[in-house]
Amino acid sequence: MRWIRFEHEGRQSYGILHGEGGDAEVEAVEGSPFGEHRATGTRMPFPAVKLLVPVIPPTFYAAGLNYVEHASTYAETVGSAPNIPQKADVGYRAANALIPHEAPVIIPRDAGEQVHYEGELVVVIGKEAKHLSEEEALSCVFGYTIGNDVSERDWQNEDRTMWRAKNTDTFKPMGPWIETDLDLDAARTSVRLNGETTVEFKTNDMLFGIETFISAMSRYLTLHPGDILWMGTEGKSPNMKDGDEVEIEISGIGTLRNRFQKEA
Amino acid sequence: MRWIRFEHEGRQSYGILHGEGGDAEVEAVEGSPFGEHRATGTRMPFPAVKLLVPVIPPTFYAAGLNYVEHASTYAETVGSAPNIPQKADVGYRAANALIPHEAPVIIPRDAGEQVHYEGELVVVIGKEAKHLSEEEALSCVFGYTIGNDVSERDWQNEDRTMWRAKNTDTFKPMGPWIETDLDLDAARTSVRLNGETTVEFKTNDMLFGIETFISAMSRYLTLHPGDILWMGTEGKSPNMKDGDEVEIEISGIGTLRNRFQKEA
Repeated sequence: MRWIRFEHEGRQSYGILHGEGGDAEVEAVEGSPFGEHRATGTRMPFPAVKLLVPVIPPTFYAAGLNYVEHASTYAETVGSAPNIPQKADVGYRAANALIPHEAPVIIPRDAGEQVHYEGELVVVIGKEAKHLSEEEALSCVFGYTIGNDVSERDWQNEDRTMWRAKNTDTFKPMGPWIETDLDLDAARTSVRLNGETTVEFKTNDMLFGIETFISAMSRYLTLHPGDILWMGTEGKSPNMKDGDEVEIEISGIGTLRNRFQKEA
Repeated sequence: MRWIRFEHEGRQSYGILHGEGGDAEVEAVEGSPFGEHRATGTRMPFPAVKLLVPVIPPTFYAAGLNYVEHASTYAETVGSAPNIPQKADVGYRAANALIPHEAPVIIPRDAGEQVHYEGELVVVIGKEAKHLSEEEALSCVFGYTIGNDVSERDWQNEDRTMWRAKNTDTFKPMGPWIETDLDLDAARTSVRLNGETTVEFKTNDMLFGIETFISAMSRYLTLHPGDILWMGTEGKSPNMKDGDEVEIEISGIGTLRNRFQKEA
């Protein structure tokens, strides 16, 4: 099932997506998939609604370096030795930076040349969870969406934290929707820059898998419905320029598309 | 004015605190101080309500090292060279860890000896804000509360991020309420461990002040109503033991009190 958040005639709500392509329809839902809710039966054509970020997370987690090749190429980019993580230490991103499918990524005027995309699987938590074993870990997962962990490498290298390198407004495109049924082991991630494939990898080929992260995290902290966990990326991005369009497709979920714009 | 969040007869709401000490009363408010709201006129004795964390932030910012002496003693604690920040690079904490005044801080069984308190001023944002100059910065501030940035130093030193060192459940006591009228330059922070004063400093004697942080942050990111910014601490904490009670008083705001308990 595909869950969206959308705006229609000035009102924001969740909805269920029925069908694909030009015939797709949105069924409005009262309430939230993370709490009490009721499908209304009211349907409208998908193109008539404006997509919103599919969930505003109470806490926004990110795995960071979680694929082998990306860890090496990132080290090259910032001129340090490769630093492959030895355990699943999770990091954080910030909700201010989230934008939906099709909204523009605005590159600040004073950003350096090295503004990069990172195509990522996003895990959406559906249930309050603590002390889950790896075997139990996926029981708290509601579904999956796609994220673009836009990164400014000069700031990432120079600042004491990743606050503006990763969390500048519009630097976290997420969407287009949440897919609750995903064959994770069959999924592949493809990134296209202006229509040409630049990165392609097996989505689940991570250093530390979703089960490992959720189990390690939930030893110390309570996961809450709507929390999100970005799983990291593979490969290397060229430097984004004004007008570049990035599409991240994860087979079984869909495609997240955003254009980069240099701040005027 | 003092704003609280509280639970009474199973319902959670915001309220305004009238008076002090044993005669204090709570006036229930419909809605939120960060949006539309209406004081109901209904009053109840302060001791009859259960205090909650005064605000659940959309984004939880933290200044980190922001006082000179603490930056040096922290470096000593983890065995590194002092690293005085050169600019206002903000960091993040996580909402899962927040607990109110009087709730226990639970030290996990596998934590090391060096579990420390950090008494901090907390800035609560009241208005959406971007591109504020230092002169304009305080115009988006709703009020102030108190935070205890509980920290496990072994994890802080060993892990790739501060996820469990700083964000383990219950590691972020905050409260007791939000004070909207504070003479910041007159304020002093005192920390008491089991009734004895261990740390005392001028609250506003920071490396980078509130105006500097808000102006720097809002160049890149939008601040939202309810966002919080923890301003860092001064001095050094002894190692917390099971049963230790920590009180953090900031003159003009109040006192945040929490007891530490080792996980059974």
